[in-house]
Amino acid sequence: MKDFILELLEEISRIGRTPSGGSNRLGLSPDDQRVRALFAERMRQCGLEVSTDAFGNLSGRLPGLNPSAPAVATGSHLDTVPNGGHYDGILGCVAGLAAARELARRPPLPRPVEVIAFQIEESTRFSNSTLGSKIMTGKADFEALRGAKDFMGNSLPSLLAAIGLDFEKLPSAVRPPNTYGAFIEMHIDQGPVLENAGVPLGVVTHIAGAIRARISLSGAAMHAGATPMTGRRDALLAAAETALALNAVAVRYAGRHSMVGTTGNLRVSPGAINVIPGAAELFCELRGTDLATLREAWANFETALAGIAAARGVEASVNITENGVPVPMHAEVQESLCRACRAHDIPYIKMASGAGHDALNMASIAPAGMLFVRVRNGLSHHPDEYASPEDIAAGSAVLLDALAELAARP
Amino acid sequence: MKDFILELLEEISRIGRTPSGGSNRLGLSPDDQRVRALFAERMRQCGLEVSTDAFGNLSGRLPGLNPSAPAVATGSHLDTVPNGGHYDGILGCVAGLAAARELARRPPLPRPVEVIAFQIEESTRFSNSTLGSKIMTGKADFEALRGAKDFMGNSLPSLLAAIGLDFEKLPSAVRPPNTYGAFIEMHIDQGPVLENAGVPLGVVTHIAGAIRARISLSGAAMHAGATPMTGRRDALLAAAETALALNAVAVRYAGRHSMVGTTGNLRVSPGAINVIPGAAELFCELRGTDLATLREAWANFETALAGIAAARGVEASVNITENGVPVPMHAEVQESLCRACRAHDIPYIKMASGAGHDALNMASIAPAGMLFVRVRNGLSHHPDEYASPEDIAAGSAVLLDALAELAARP
Repeated sequence: MKDFILELLEEISRIGRTPSGGSNRLGLSPDDQRVRALFAERMRQCGLEVSTDAFGNLSGRLPGLNPSAPAVATGSHLDTVPNGGHYDGILGCVAGLAAARELARRPPLPRPVEVIAFQIEESTRFSNSTLGSKIMTGKADFEALRGAKDFMGNSLPSLLAAIGLDFEKLPSAVRPPNTYGAFIEMHIDQGPVLENAGVPLGVVTHIAGAIRARISLSGAAMHAGATPMTGRRDALLAAAETALALNAVAVRYAGRHSMVGTTGNLRVSPGAINVIPGAAELFCELRGTDLATLREAWANFETALAGIAAARGVEASVNITENGVPVPMHAEVQESLCRACRAHDIPYIKMASGAGHDALNMASIAPAGMLFVRVRNGLSHHPDEYASPEDIAAGSAVLLDALAELAARP
Repeated sequence: MKDFILELLEEISRIGRTPSGGSNRLGLSPDDQRVRALFAERMRQCGLEVSTDAFGNLSGRLPGLNPSAPAVATGSHLDTVPNGGHYDGILGCVAGLAAARELARRPPLPRPVEVIAFQIEESTRFSNSTLGSKIMTGKADFEALRGAKDFMGNSLPSLLAAIGLDFEKLPSAVRPPNTYGAFIEMHIDQGPVLENAGVPLGVVTHIAGAIRARISLSGAAMHAGATPMTGRRDALLAAAETALALNAVAVRYAGRHSMVGTTGNLRVSPGAINVIPGAAELFCELRGTDLATLREAWANFETALAGIAAARGVEASVNITENGVPVPMHAEVQESLCRACRAHDIPYIKMASGAGHDALNMASIAPAGMLFVRVRNGLSHHPDEYASPEDIAAGSAVLLDALAELAARP
């Protein structure tokens, strides 16, 4: 199983390879399509029945003794961020296929097993992540998607038409109730949590929810040389204090419910060296696994922001762009994964996922779980993203056992 | 004199007017050329002998009884920043012409009086300010200017050729020693100092020197959701603390030698909402009128920066882009201006200029002084830039008296 996985990872990594050794496979791009075709071919070779839905989500199915029973599904995505790595998403698809390949060689289990390669998981192209699983689980806003354009101005309907898909048929991709009896996504840890804990695997307890906002600060652009220090209304200084206040809130709550907080960008206007900044814009987020705590922390941040704005004489406006809800992973799926770890004597921890994943959407239509695999230096979305063959083998063995156990249920 | 000034200001303000009521007269632009032609015509009508040098600096001269004596000069510039105001630079040219017009009607004085409209004072076009006075005073680097391009990629030699000037002849614009016996520039205050003091006029004691730097901070770009708060190397948080540290140093020194400090821009990379900023760049400056104090304050700031970088685990590099020296205004010229204020019973203060001006260069070849006129709301480089007719009349009367007194010297 390990050799199959490493070889297929290697084969996929050669498609869309960048000069710095990373992967460039934007969702719906020719290289993304090439990898999907290769993956479909490998699924067929492993004995799976291959189909795609109206959005291009790719499924490979092992029928089981009771083909109409809710399937036990696994999978992730094959697209990457620009100059991304070779594991984020891909490992979950490949390990899922390896498990199905193994199960295809064993006596049939009661339930069908389905491997899914979701379409367009990364948010790079449409500023909207996990599109394939959103559509599959009925969470997508079709009217909004009709008008969606990528960063080059191409509409989603036109990009789908170019690969032979009809936007108007998208609603048919929504899965009927009870299609899936369980879903497990294996994925690399995208940070240093497992590395710091010194264990290869993590069983995910929650996928964090995120509150995101664009914060605009408006002061007064004055001459930097001719305006004394008193009476300035410097929007950049207020923005600096705001970024530090968000960090302070996140640090204060860090021990509780996996809270993290980040200001990812800060823009200054007019941005001239001899002008006091008259305006600034920040892009802030808080993430955590407990909704009440997350909202409490965000409220604390907004209180701090109001104080900063008043003290600096600037006006602040907060535009909430995302108000996400943390999603717990299903207890039975978690237990199934933990049991498999123990059976193989593989060290693991229970942990939250700070990043969003297709499993977040799948949890709304089936008991869902996630298995994280340790990466080196906490790196993801980067050419140097790396999981060791040993850790990959450990994760794949656990995934196989958990899928087999869940598919064995009547 | 007041009517002449207000009418000419109004006439000039109609050339290159913007929809928001400001002025767009980039140096060497057609509208800038139009205003210069108008100003030359008005100088002739006032009885001045008009000439331009090889860079297009425009002079209008009243010979005096001893035409070969060092002239008493006055003036400023006619170009504006994009969508700038109607007073910055222009007022000094127009009030200088009004004074010369008045002197032309009186019995001749011993010394020549010269009104100068300097070419390209604003730094917008070539990222280099006071070009005309730099060239006139021998401070320009001709080889660097030969390769200088504006922000649209036009070379300075080609732009000069387009208005009939030969770049190779620029050295002839350098004034011979003892061309000028004194220089006075009247200019609007570009901040709220006079407004806050409640007086119409300021006699400038020093033009501040500026230390400017581009500061690069390099941390680690990690996943904002999957990376815990501990162990982050967030370049934006370090940049925020750096901007606040510069401000703290400037505030601490604010009472001494007119120190001000500003971070005019801050850029973040990669700038995605879900990525911890891996790099940030700041554009910082400190200005002050005492070189030792300015350097001491900057050293304090760099010490603070080193501490911030170490605490945040980021690397900082400081690229000093300007290391300016404060320039005192000449005591006799200051006294001449103060005497004229007192003679007219006009309230004034002595103050530093935080902004740079053509007078800064002229001070290297002649005893120089500056007279500031109050503006409303501290605004300059803005369509709403405004000086009242009363304050303009007060400044013009003082300028006339000081010029007359200096030109009366044998």
